[in-house]
Parts: sequence; C-alpha cells; structure tokens
Amino acid sequence: MGSTAPGWKEKADAKRQAVLDLIPAAWRLPAPPPSPKEQPDVTGAYVQQFLSPREIELTEADAPTIVAHTSSGDWTATEVVTAFCHRAAIAHQLTSCLHEIFFGQAIAEAKRLDEAFAATGKPTGPLHGLPVSFKDQFHVRGVETTMGYVGWIGTFEGRKGTGKEKVYESELVREIRALGGVPFCKTSLPHTVMSAETWNNIVGYTRNPHNRLMSSGGSSGGEGSLVSLKGSPIGFGTDIGGSVRIPAAFCGIYGIRPSFGRLPYAGAANSMPGQNSIPSVCGPMSGSAAGLKMMLQAVLAQQPWLHDPAVVEMPWRESLAAMLPASAEEMGEVLTFGMCPSDEATAPTPPVRRAFETVKALIEKLGHQTIEWTPPSHSRATELAFQAYIADGGIDIHHHIGLSGEPLQWRVADYYGTEATPPKTADQVFDFNFELFQYRRDYLDYWNSTAALTKSGRPVDAVLAPVAPIAAIELDKSWHIGYTPWVNTLDYAAAVFPVTKVDPAIDVVDESYVPLNDLDKAIHDEYNPVTQANTPVGLQLVGRRFQEEKILALVEMLSTALAKE
Amino acid sequence: MGSTAPGWKEKADAKRQAVLDLIPAAWRLPAPPPSPKEQPDVTGAYVQQFLSPREIELTEADAPTIVAHTSSGDWTATEVVTAFCHRAAIAHQLTSCLHEIFFGQAIAEAKRLDEAFAATGKPTGPLHGLPVSFKDQFHVRGVETTMGYVGWIGTFEGRKGTGKEKVYESELVREIRALGGVPFCKTSLPHTVMSAETWNNIVGYTRNPHNRLMSSGGSSGGEGSLVSLKGSPIGFGTDIGGSVRIPAAFCGIYGIRPSFGRLPYAGAANSMPGQNSIPSVCGPMSGSAAGLKMMLQAVLAQQPWLHDPAVVEMPWRESLAAMLPASAEEMGEVLTFGMCPSDEATAPTPPVRRAFETVKALIEKLGHQTIEWTPPSHSRATELAFQAYIADGGIDIHHHIGLSGEPLQWRVADYYGTEATPPKTADQVFDFNFELFQYRRDYLDYWNSTAALTKSGRPVDAVLAPVAPIAAIELDKSWHIGYTPWVNTLDYAAAVFPVTKVDPAIDVVDESYVPLNDLDKAIHDEYNPVTQANTPVGLQLVGRRFQEEKILALVEMLSTALAKE
Repeated sequence: MGSTAPGWKEKADAKRQAVLDLIPAAWRLPAPPPSPKEQPDVTGAYVQQFLSPREIELTEADAPTIVAHTSSGDWTATEVVTAFCHRAAIAHQLTSCLHEIFFGQAIAEAKRLDEAFAATGKPTGPLHGLPVSFKDQFHVRGVETTMGYVGWIGTFEGRKGTGKEKVYESELVREIRALGGVPFCKTSLPHTVMSAETWNNIVGYTRNPHNRLMSSGGSSGGEGSLVSLKGSPIGFGTDIGGSVRIPAAFCGIYGIRPSFGRLPYAGAANSMPGQNSIPSVCGPMSGSAAGLKMMLQAVLAQQPWLHDPAVVEMPWRESLAAMLPASAEEMGEVLTFGMCPSDEATAPTPPVRRAFETVKALIEKLGHQTIEWTPPSHSRATELAFQAYIADGGIDIHHHIGLSGEPLQWRVADYYGTEATPPKTADQVFDFNFELFQYRRDYLDYWNSTAALTKSGRPVDAVLAPVAPIAAIELDKSWHIGYTPWVNTLDYAAAVFPVTKVDPAIDVVDESYVPLNDLDKAIHDEYNPVTQANTPVGLQLVGRRFQEEKILALVEMLSTALAKE
Repeated sequence: MGSTAPGWKEKADAKRQAVLDLIPAAWRLPAPPPSPKEQPDVTGAYVQQFLSPREIELTEADAPTIVAHTSSGDWTATEVVTAFCHRAAIAHQLTSCLHEIFFGQAIAEAKRLDEAFAATGKPTGPLHGLPVSFKDQFHVRGVETTMGYVGWIGTFEGRKGTGKEKVYESELVREIRALGGVPFCKTSLPHTVMSAETWNNIVGYTRNPHNRLMSSGGSSGGEGSLVSLKGSPIGFGTDIGGSVRIPAAFCGIYGIRPSFGRLPYAGAANSMPGQNSIPSVCGPMSGSAAGLKMMLQAVLAQQPWLHDPAVVEMPWRESLAAMLPASAEEMGEVLTFGMCPSDEATAPTPPVRRAFETVKALIEKLGHQTIEWTPPSHSRATELAFQAYIADGGIDIHHHIGLSGEPLQWRVADYYGTEATPPKTADQVFDFNFELFQYRRDYLDYWNSTAALTKSGRPVDAVLAPVAPIAAIELDKSWHIGYTPWVNTLDYAAAVFPVTKVDPAIDVVDESYVPLNDLDKAIHDEYNPVTQANTPVGLQLVGRRFQEEKILALVEMLSTALAKE
C-alpha cells in the first residue's frame, strides 16, 4: 500500500468537481480567489463583499438569535437557510471546507418548516429553521459520506450494495431534523480522521479563514473553517484527541468535547469503530457559547439514550449551570481554576502564552482563585491515548486507504506507517484498559486533593489550558499534539473559547527563550509573528466527566468578561 | 496446565482450616452437621437451634429494620454485628459459604460505632451498625483475597511484595465503612468467577441452604447462601452473566444487577480486568427489596463517581421510583410488562413455569398489562456474551490457575479448556464491540416499538423472565446458561425476587413434554420434584439501562402483592 494505484486521482478530482458543480452559478466567485499570501484573511469585510446586507445580517447572528427570530416568525427559515447556503458556498471557494452540498434539499426543508409555521403559528421545534452543518462522518440522506477516503466514493463506508447508500441517516442527523434544524452541508476532514490538519485527496487542504497561510486545524477543520467564516451558525465535529477543540481554537470559535455517552454518535462513520478504550465523541462547534448550550439542551431533550445505546440517561441539568455567570462578589462564592499552561514536552509560543495570562488575570480580577495544576503526568496520558489510536496496528485505516490506493497524508503516515503492523492481542487491550482505569483513578484522586488548596473548600471547578503550543499549524511546519489528548484519556468535558489573535506588535519572538528539547526548539524557531498575524488563539476549559453544563456556563462567564475588557 | 502440581492441596487445606479456626469455639457446631441428604433444608428452625431468641430476633430483621433500630439507639451495633457473626459462622459450617472471617475486626468497629453514638446521640451514617458481607473479590484490610485461587493465598491478586497485601481496600468497602456499615466476612465463589456454581479448591462446594442437594448458584453463591440463611442482612456480589441473579434466585433472596457505571467496582479483584466489552458489575443481595434500595441510595449518596472513574454521575432518582407501588387503579396508570418465559434453547421446568405464570397472573390481577416479548434473539445475545468472556483465549484464568497448579473445576474447563488458546486481536475485539453496539441498538429499537402495543402508549416498563430453566443446579447434573447473559450483553438493570419453592405435589413431571433439543431433553429428564423439593424459585425483572430505581420499585410492588396472595 506504500505505492499508489492508478485511478484514484481521477475519482477524487471528479468528486471534488461534482461538489463544486452543485454551487449555483450566481454563488460562484466572479474570479478565482487571491492566493493565501495575497489575501490571508478572508473573514469580515472580505467575505461580506459577496453577500447582500440582508444576507450579512442573517448569517452574522448567532444560533440562539437566529432561532429566536425564526421561532417568532420574524425571519423565515427559507431566507435564513438560503443565506447560509450562499455564504457556505463562498466559504468553500475560499478555504475548501465542504465535502457535500445539499442546498436544494435544505431549502426545500426550510420551505416545509415555513409552511408548517404559517399553518400552526408555532415553530416545529427548539431549532426551528436553524441551518446545521456536519463533519463528513455523519450520514445524511441524499448524499454520500466519504470521510475523506477516495475509496468510499460511490459506496456506504467503503462497501457497495448495502442498501444504505444515500438513504441512511445517522441518529444525530435524525434528531436535528426532529428539532426543526436543517442539515445543509457536510464539512471536510482528514482521511482517517486521525490528524489535527484537515487534508484529503478529494477536497485538498482546508485553510484557516483568518489567515489562510495557516491550517484550520483538524480533524474537524471543515467545521472550524466554515463556522469561523459564518457559513454555518453551528455544526458538529468529533473529537478523539482534540479534533473539535483544535480547529475551534485555530479558527477562533467555540466548541465542546463532551464526555463519551452524552451525545449520540450512533450511525456515524468512524475510524476503528468499536475501539472503546478512548472513543471518539461528537460535539457542536459554534460562534458563541450560547449556541453550544442551546444545542446540547435541544439534543438532550430528544432523549438520545432511547436511540443510541452508548448514551447515558442524563438530561440537561440546569442546576449545574445556574450558579453562573458572575464575579465572585456577585456570586457570593469563589470559584477555583487550575492553571495548566503547557504540557511536559513543549512550552507555548508567545501568543498562546499571552492568551493564557490574559485569562488567568481575568479570572483573578473577577475575584476567583487560580492554583497551579500539578496532576499525574499529561505526557503519560498522551502516551496512553496514542496507544489506543494504534491498538489495531493501523489495520482499519490502511484497509480504507487501500480501497483506492490513494496516498496516505504524510503526517498520518508518520504515525501509522505505510502499512499495517501487528495489532495488540485482546489480553493486551484489556491490560491497557486497566492501566487507563488506574490513570483515571489517580487523576480523580489528584483532583479531589485540590480541595485542601481552595478558598471554597471544594476541589477545583475547572482547569484552564491551551490546546496547542502554537496558535495554529503553519503548513508543513513542526507540530505537536500534547495539549489535548489528556482530556480524551480522562473522558472529561472540555470547551474551547476564543481569547485573542496573534499580534506581531505584541507577540514578538522571545530571543532569550531556552528550548526544552529539539521538538520545542523547532516549534519556537519556526514561530513567526508576521506570518501568523491575525491567527486566532483559543484556550480550553476542562471539567470533570459529564460536567458539560458547568463548563459551558464558565466559558460563557469568561467570554462575557473578556468581551468587556 | 492439564496436570496438577504438588503442594496446591496442602495450601488449600491449610487455608480452609485457618478460616475454620477463626470461628470461636463457642460458635462451633456441637457435632458434625448431618449430610445434605439427611437434612437438605438448614434454614428456619434448623439453623435457629444454634441461636438464642435474641440472636434470632436481630438476624431475622431485614436491613432497613436493623438500621432503623441501630439509628435510634434501640439496638447496639455490637449486639447486631455479634449476632450476625455467630449466625454466619453457623451458616459456613452448614454450607461452606465463607472465604474470610474477620469477626474480631467487625465487632471492634461496632464498638467504635456504639461509642460514637453514645457521645453524639447520632448514627455515624445511613448504614449505622449494619453488617455487610462481600464476595471474595473485594479487598478488605486485615484479610486476604483469593478469589478462589489457591495461587493467590499469601499474595495480592497473585503477586507478592506489592505492599498491598492485607492493607488495601476496595472503593466500595471504603464507602460502606464511611456509611457506618460494618464489613464482617467475605463469601465464597468459584475460582475464575466464571461459573454459575460456587466451588473452588479452597472451601469446596457451597450448597443451597434450602436444599443442600442443590447448588447455591454462582458465581456469587457464597453471598446467596449466607444471606439466605440470614447470616448476613446484605452483601455484595458481582454479575457478568448472571452471577448475582442466579444465586439470588436459587437461594430465594433479592439481588440486583445494576448497569455498568452505577456502583463502584474500583479496586476489586476480577477476572480479565479491563475487559470492557461486557464488563462485570457489582450489586447487592439481600433478604428484601427494601434492603437493596436502601443500599443503592446509601452508596450513591457517597458520590462514587468522585472516586471510581467508571461510575457515572447519577444520584438516586426517587422520581423514577415514586410512581409506585400500587395497582393500576391506585396508580391511575396501567404499566406494561413484557413476558419472556424462556430462551430459545430450552423451556422452563415445571416449578419455573409455575412461578412465571403466578407472577404473570398477579400483574394482570393488579390491572396492569402483559404483552408477549419478541425481541432480537437472546441466543445471539448469549453468544455475544460468551465471545466476550473468552476474548483473551483464557490467558488470564489459566495464568492464575497455573500459579498453584490446582485443577480447574470441570464445568469451567468445559468452557475455557485446559490451557489458553490464541486471543482475539485488537481489530477483532473492536469489530466485536461494534457488533455488540448494533445488537444493543436493535434491541432499543424493539423496546421502543412496543409503545404501539401498550395501553399507556409508552414502551414496556419492564420485562419478566426466569433466570434459568431450572429452580437450581443439582450437583453434577445438566445445566444451561441462557436466561441471564442477555441482560449483561445489553447492560440493562435487572433485579431478582423470590416467587415460590419447588413443591413435589404441584410441580410434577410433565410426561407429555416434547423437548426442543438434546440439552432441553437432558434438563427435563433430570428434573426431579422430589430431590428438588423446597428449592426456591426466583424470577428477574429487567429494565432499561440505568433504570435501577424503577426496577426496584416494581419488584417491591410485585413482592408486596405476592405476599398478600
């Protein structure tokens, strides 16, 4: 499988073109877009030039605002969905963020919602008329799912004649429809889904709309890029090692990695389905924390545990969110945040450090407490996560790459090799699971132990950490995944929020920096504030398992306070 | 490993004798007990002959009654604990149900509780002074855990010099102490824990106190036997395929198999730790449904999710239990019960059939609805469960048997062979997990579909099923595990309750019975109402995942109604 087979490129090219051809002529860019170097930032005024003032108004509202307007009859679902289809089409032409387009289906659905509203005077559900995008792991009727694999074109997850092709829908998609939401496009991802960069042989490289010299992150980079350009008010990514959080941070939006079993993943495609040591989870990505909260509340109201056996019966618990948001004085309570500014292998580059210090100072200004976070080794957690990802020796991903003979992206090949290696045996998998359990238990003990250090007398409420040592990946430059997998290893709830952007005037190179090791040296040597200018910097707030309500409330509190700074 | 090594028998004999030697002279039987044939039933008047009237009063109260008395200061913890120690000692001499005895430690703890009560006027916790027994997978300070393995004698889970020997405690044991409960003995189990009969080379065969010609069931047969003889008011077993439910049913007591993640298993010994496809769970066994409820409420109040990373943050939800108990008329609501009288491989013998029909008629008499249960194949569920149990090719159990060279019990060897076979590979484990997920999803869909058949318009509330085609295993006779593993495959909540006892006058052999197959023929041919006379017959009530509150409420409702019949 190291050499590539003939034919894969033609199939990939045809698929890419077929998707582009679905963009109505009126929505095509009048001329090829400028190169990333000429025009790094395509957000704001740049993308707005292709839209009408009304389209700008509709697409720049956040998800709860949209639903408020569609539910009151103020805005029609049709005009909202059509505007987002248009903006998504522009976004795709600027950043290659889409995999499947089904604007016609979506607009038809919006019309049905409007008719129902006209007939009943009531919205169809709590997401009435809200356009929702999905990473191309979710199956939507009428279109394919390739998950970035050329070999999946014209199949159902690589198999032909299953009867599911273009008719099967994932459980989450079904629930979004039941809630009145309108699926309208599917977004790009790296083939294998096991990369923090979004690239595949079909749509190519998905760039960061704030700085197209940079990556959108991954593996949910299509969502990151699309939502960041406001081509979608909210969409779903998946996260097995940072795949929601990294693109959310790189693209300057909000995203949540819930604990496994909170949201339904049933019926979505995946790499290594059944790998349940450190499983992938799905989570929404949106322009506001309020959007994430609205989505979690809506999906949980569908009782997904009645339809996905992996989902735990745990409704939205407003009581966990109700304590917030406010300063310590307003709350009459001091919260405590663990401060985790780096991993053990690397230190953050200047913009990430500044973002972290900004939020730390803000927390303290609000009257809350910060304490140093000195948990069981995060390098160990990362090592455990990487063991889980490679447990099958890469058999699954090499099989799917082999279906077409397409080349494996080089960063993925660095990890998975060019062919499969012997898998672990069942007894080794079980031993591994037991080690994982022990690590989780040690971490719980550590978290509990912080009660001795807090003013509240309770263990810390959340942990603040970067998602990477850099603001975003610069194409082909050094990269290190070490800030996000510990959350997956622990199955904790974590949400990302935007903090700042790289500012070459402030985030200058620290000439006195002494690197920790070769990797850290490469990352710091390659940091260039001029190239990276305007790239968003996000941070993650991490809570215990199933603490989604609390984490979103805290993120909303911090974001609101940040906006006032 | 097929041949046995020298020395194991001496070690086993010495260990057995050492435990017997811990029984105070005053509590030894005045003469060797009669043979099982001479005196099959040792419950009731038989065991009472060795106890004082006060001891009988104390030990025949159920767990909530005991706690009510100790919490009001009416009874002292010391007198309660001492009485149960005495009765447990008698029980062990009659049925070989104990593995570890630590009466001295327990009585000392009871004294501390009494002193605290005297000082404060308040109970230490919601289980103040309640004796609690544990299957010999749970570690308790001061004593060993052998899990029935000769090779574990003098070690910590088969390893020496770990520093944990006789000092380490399982999380559940810690919590029971924190609640004011008093661990006082550990109960027998089959080595490997993978058997529905309780037998090992150390304590021998644990017999059914209602009919010592029969098995107590397994793998939590020590608990079943002890609790049934009222040598413990409540204890903990574990269940991976029926190991709480089978002994509870055979011994005529109550037991619950909660969903995985409801109660803390952390720090307990197990076979194949880390096998998380169909994991073992722990659950209480007691003389009343109210005892089970009290125990679940108490443990959940300890927030075990803060100490065991596998436990889900789900407090006791009284709202799920509050609908009950009452008839349909009293409730103003008709419940629906799925009727699942057998598996696909065998039909129940006469006493089990009668028990089932009795409860079915009772449900209908209460005004509730029964419908036929026609779910996805339970044989398929059983096959999936058995695949999980053997995923490692038996490497784990053969390793531990091999530590001493002791012989593997024949029924276990029938399944696991005399040596390990090649384990599954990781990719096969993941494929298996995915199949399991699909089965669970199909079952959810089926369960949801029953809403179309119920008077309530809701899916069925619970499913009634036997735990075996026979009332209990007759030593060395045919046996079939097919009625319980589907619950584990689905990870559903299931509770067992006693219904009746084998009555030779009623449960006569059905001469016209046409067997389904050879196994079914053997089971029915060997059914002998005279030999099996007085053996309890229990049934299980099965609810969806994490529906422990509801299932216990329904079991209490049915048991209360049964008692009035």
